[in-house]
Amino acid sequence: MLLEEAIRTLKEAADPVRDIEKVPLARASGRVLALDLKASYDQPPFPRSPLDGYAVRGEDTICASEENPVELRILGKIYAGQVFRGEVHKGECVRLMTGAPIPTGANAVIRQEDTDYEPGKAGDFTGPDSRVKIFRGAAPYQNYVYEGEDYRKGDILLRAGTVLNGMRLGIAAGAGLNELEVYREPAITVISTGDEVIAPGQDLKAGKIYDSNQYTVVGRLADLGFSRVESMHCPDDPAIMADRIRKAKETSDLIITTGGVSVGEKDIMHQVMADLKGKKLFWKVSLKPGAPTLAFVLEEKLPVICLTGNPYGVAVNFELLIRPVLEALSLNPGIRSKTCMGKLKNDSPKWGGVRRFMRGFYERESSEVTILAGSHASGTLSSMAACNCLVEIPEDSGGKAGEDVKIYLL
Amino acid sequence: MLLEEAIRTLKEAADPVRDIEKVPLARASGRVLALDLKASYDQPPFPRSPLDGYAVRGEDTICASEENPVELRILGKIYAGQVFRGEVHKGECVRLMTGAPIPTGANAVIRQEDTDYEPGKAGDFTGPDSRVKIFRGAAPYQNYVYEGEDYRKGDILLRAGTVLNGMRLGIAAGAGLNELEVYREPAITVISTGDEVIAPGQDLKAGKIYDSNQYTVVGRLADLGFSRVESMHCPDDPAIMADRIRKAKETSDLIITTGGVSVGEKDIMHQVMADLKGKKLFWKVSLKPGAPTLAFVLEEKLPVICLTGNPYGVAVNFELLIRPVLEALSLNPGIRSKTCMGKLKNDSPKWGGVRRFMRGFYERESSEVTILAGSHASGTLSSMAACNCLVEIPEDSGGKAGEDVKIYLL
Repeated sequence: MLLEEAIRTLKEAADPVRDIEKVPLARASGRVLALDLKASYDQPPFPRSPLDGYAVRGEDTICASEENPVELRILGKIYAGQVFRGEVHKGECVRLMTGAPIPTGANAVIRQEDTDYEPGKAGDFTGPDSRVKIFRGAAPYQNYVYEGEDYRKGDILLRAGTVLNGMRLGIAAGAGLNELEVYREPAITVISTGDEVIAPGQDLKAGKIYDSNQYTVVGRLADLGFSRVESMHCPDDPAIMADRIRKAKETSDLIITTGGVSVGEKDIMHQVMADLKGKKLFWKVSLKPGAPTLAFVLEEKLPVICLTGNPYGVAVNFELLIRPVLEALSLNPGIRSKTCMGKLKNDSPKWGGVRRFMRGFYERESSEVTILAGSHASGTLSSMAACNCLVEIPEDSGGKAGEDVKIYLL
Repeated sequence: MLLEEAIRTLKEAADPVRDIEKVPLARASGRVLALDLKASYDQPPFPRSPLDGYAVRGEDTICASEENPVELRILGKIYAGQVFRGEVHKGECVRLMTGAPIPTGANAVIRQEDTDYEPGKAGDFTGPDSRVKIFRGAAPYQNYVYEGEDYRKGDILLRAGTVLNGMRLGIAAGAGLNELEVYREPAITVISTGDEVIAPGQDLKAGKIYDSNQYTVVGRLADLGFSRVESMHCPDDPAIMADRIRKAKETSDLIITTGGVSVGEKDIMHQVMADLKGKKLFWKVSLKPGAPTLAFVLEEKLPVICLTGNPYGVAVNFELLIRPVLEALSLNPGIRSKTCMGKLKNDSPKWGGVRRFMRGFYERESSEVTILAGSHASGTLSSMAACNCLVEIPEDSGGKAGEDVKIYLL
């Protein structure tokens, strides 16, 4: 199957998770908003002063000048967070600080710098006889932040489907919300197979190697922010594997396995699919590495994607096949692979016959990409260390230095 | 102070966190490796078969053809994970599967497809008399994966300073490690000020607004993967604020505050800095919004960065001033802002006089950037919703459509 067809098939099979849960703001980064966030009050909720100065009736001050200052009686003094309970009449003002509500009767604010203000002296509020001289007047509604200037009650501040980040959480907090309704994260189960693999941390025995695939997949899921992940290893026994999947099915939105998808005696996943009465989506995709991917669906809704056992094949399959499914399940477009074009700096050691995805290092500044040195065997782990992208070498390309190639950024 | 100088000053003041802690692989994504990861054994740890077939002495088979097949006695059968304890002599072979160790005496593997293999019949191992006919031979060391072909014991697989991701965790797992030594995450305390602000979730009272800044900063820290974050609000009282900072100092690598940095009566941070005997790094940076940033250092090592109280100013300061400090503290180059050039699609409503950072929406495909509609007042929250980048409008630019501008991706 062509890669694009495989991706389309998988996305269609994915059942987006639309369950809604409430999470506190501090844990909502990266989550997807499930409902429109509407303002429940005007922002700001009252007319406020944008600076330190005096709330006045603009019409009282408009003719003020250095030569002919206007003198006003100061009724009181308020800071941001305080409210002046009285009313400002002709010839009166209230000293107020940035962010304080403009009192009833006042309609403009005079900047402190345009008065005779001195701390504790003229222009400060020290008692009922306090007065200030204004050297430069303000028109009505000058230096006046309207109630609702930022947004109005009922306005949609963030739309359903928005991926939350710091700025958006600031908006939500400013609107008074301390928790948000977001889609539940998809629950993902990862099962590696292979009788030859043992868990890292254990002693290495003859004929065994350590399980890397489970950690590559779990690590990539963590890189993308998925936290509802269970992972385990399973021996090459179709009955045990079918049982593991049956159990995982109850709690999972996606099951990813590695190994056992080729044609050998220990390639158990075909048998497992049959035992589980899975509906096959495809087996084998036209790409290298990771061609023998098998995908099936359980009970019309749960995709099971069975990747190759080759470590680099797993990494490639994850970027190309798993990410689109994760995007569909989580309703989060931020999960999509970031792709761009880059200029190949060196010849690809492999090319031709099939679409290939090589380990690459992309330099953003120059848009150049280097195919990494070292072994490009799909079983090789070490040359994945410096990899920051996959480089696509199309079937009909020679993969030569200077070619423009498509890059999938990790 | 120029922005670049402010950044340099802050980075010099930051004391990188070099404490080392062990974390399990599944929680190591995004962390920075503290020590070189060296291989403690060869990978693969034994010569292995890359395919399903027969381990042979290549020299026995090299002349085999369809017309003149070579017949070998099958000593046994092993799967990946199993070991054949005997030795292969002239005229003998071992049936083995992909990943299985090549037995002593054998030096090549014949593909199953190049034999008369039929499951349970010819070529399968059914007892001491089992035999296989080989139609196409192999030279010594053909289809033979050498011990250590991927890497050798002692090789450095990942260097200290590497930012861990799924692929690299796969490498570590493959090398047998189930936990890694990484730098401790910087501990960050966020303190918002302002007597007018109350916590989201509470009832809104007259003259009050909700605290957004605390959540913008905490949210951005979460976006970047920082989890050791404490946050709180503090009233506009220099003694209380100094006390909060004194307490936070004991457990923090960085303290970020918002509000109280201008010149008004409630701009307490200057007093707080003096009370704490902080060494001033700078006050005021040549940019808009967020110009009145104050920064000081406590006890020669703890930076305290005091941002404006304006919500958009906080967001801009975070990207331009806080991220470089976080990068320095965490020794993680992945924290650096991703910048690129974009073509401005519309005129900036603000320009000239000073470097400005406008709310923008960048389209990766076309490299075009739009300055967002809506109010660009630095107190406006709502127009931050669609923002996916900051757009720099230089001091001497008119910010006109068609200009190439620098973009800071969020």
